[in-house]
Amino acid sequence: MAIGVFDSGIGGLTVFKSIAEHFPALDIYYLGDTARVPYGGKSRETIISYSLECAEYLITKCGAEAIVIACNTASSYAVDIISEKFHVPVTGVVLPGAEQALRVSKKGKIGVIGTRATIRSGSYRAALETMSEIELDIYENACPLFVPIVEEMMTESPIAELAVKMYLEELSKKGIDTLVLGCTHYPLLKNTITRLYPQFSIVDSSEVIIEHLIRSGLNTSGKSVRKLFFTDESPAMEILRNELASGAPAEIISLG
Amino acid sequence: MAIGVFDSGIGGLTVFKSIAEHFPALDIYYLGDTARVPYGGKSRETIISYSLECAEYLITKCGAEAIVIACNTASSYAVDIISEKFHVPVTGVVLPGAEQALRVSKKGKIGVIGTRATIRSGSYRAALETMSEIELDIYENACPLFVPIVEEMMTESPIAELAVKMYLEELSKKGIDTLVLGCTHYPLLKNTITRLYPQFSIVDSSEVIIEHLIRSGLNTSGKSVRKLFFTDESPAMEILRNELASGAPAEIISLG
Repeated sequence: MAIGVFDSGIGGLTVFKSIAEHFPALDIYYLGDTARVPYGGKSRETIISYSLECAEYLITKCGAEAIVIACNTASSYAVDIISEKFHVPVTGVVLPGAEQALRVSKKGKIGVIGTRATIRSGSYRAALETMSEIELDIYENACPLFVPIVEEMMTESPIAELAVKMYLEELSKKGIDTLVLGCTHYPLLKNTITRLYPQFSIVDSSEVIIEHLIRSGLNTSGKSVRKLFFTDESPAMEILRNELASGAPAEIISLG
Repeated sequence: MAIGVFDSGIGGLTVFKSIAEHFPALDIYYLGDTARVPYGGKSRETIISYSLECAEYLITKCGAEAIVIACNTASSYAVDIISEKFHVPVTGVVLPGAEQALRVSKKGKIGVIGTRATIRSGSYRAALETMSEIELDIYENACPLFVPIVEEMMTESPIAELAVKMYLEELSKKGIDTLVLGCTHYPLLKNTITRLYPQFSIVDSSEVIIEHLIRSGLNTSGKSVRKLFFTDESPAMEILRNELASGAPAEIISLG
């Protein structure tokens, strides 16, 4: 069958890679909305409207029968809405991330970081509280400078270190033992985060989505079709297309 | 008459304010494309397509008879294209900024900073070289972290200081005497820049656009109509609407 994966930009190609490796026969279509990236500062209405356009393209133009949202911001607002509108199974990154956090946290003191929109949505808090059998201490923080620092490939710079301290020092003081990286960009700052805060168990939602897909009973047969779509050119696109998507063909398209 | 001012976001409201103060009778419509901000990392084609949509809205829906582009990135690509398509006079911020740089520079050693797209376009270099009677030394640098730092209102933070040094140290070593702030956001970093590099004469394009409009023979009669349009809600919108636009009415619209 065919699955559609979308993200606000190119970061979700890590999820594409992971799915492609685990399900080699599956037909996988990826759409990165690079013209309108980032989603993390936009309003709920705009995030939903852009997410619906991405899903519609993958379903109607590519024949996707299931959708994976690789973007935490879109996952925080649009999973149910896409599922209801197009009658296809939709998997976001929030539920798998929350599940994994509950598995690794020893004290139930969990930190969640993400874009402004993801944190504002309360999606991780709601998922964690619904699934947990014990009382949790959840501390959330939006880290809006992390995305541009990662996009500038300055993840090992003094600026990255300063930004990590600025956003995480408060969570560290609260005594969290687990930190959920609630944005596709943040895993690229993992080295800097663990160097400064080695006591945190780090949860990367995109790493645990595979297990979630297996459990969902996804039909993974197919013809190994791999195709990428982007709404604008971007400098890192070519590099990541080769590194993460084995050079799958890519096309620039218009949405909206 | 009615004039239309557009910007990729809310920063261009400084230009709106300046025009409104200098031409009190003029009808002024402002469009901030907050849903698709920032333009600075997008491709030429996307910047032109979005700029045309902004201009079209102001001309066809608001009756604007002249367009001011308050965004350096859009000014770098779309002035002539909008003018040819809609047959209205179009003023960008690049020419006024370049003119001012030539006026204040004593040594003809000029630094230009802007978004990746503005620097890639070479618009300031071309304008400076065309207008100068002497041989110039022009040094350009893209400063992609400045916009998010300003949007996060961290202009006086250690991170801002580190970023200013990172982007400007090289220009300083080249011995520039004049620095063109080729992005609507950058004037908010002026304090930090002049503290670290007091030897630079700073050129803020948005400050000199008025003189350019006066010279263009703009008919400034009207009924003092003031109206703002944005393509998405944004947290700073309400504050800036009151601070820079005297609380002019604002409406959320869709483009594209």
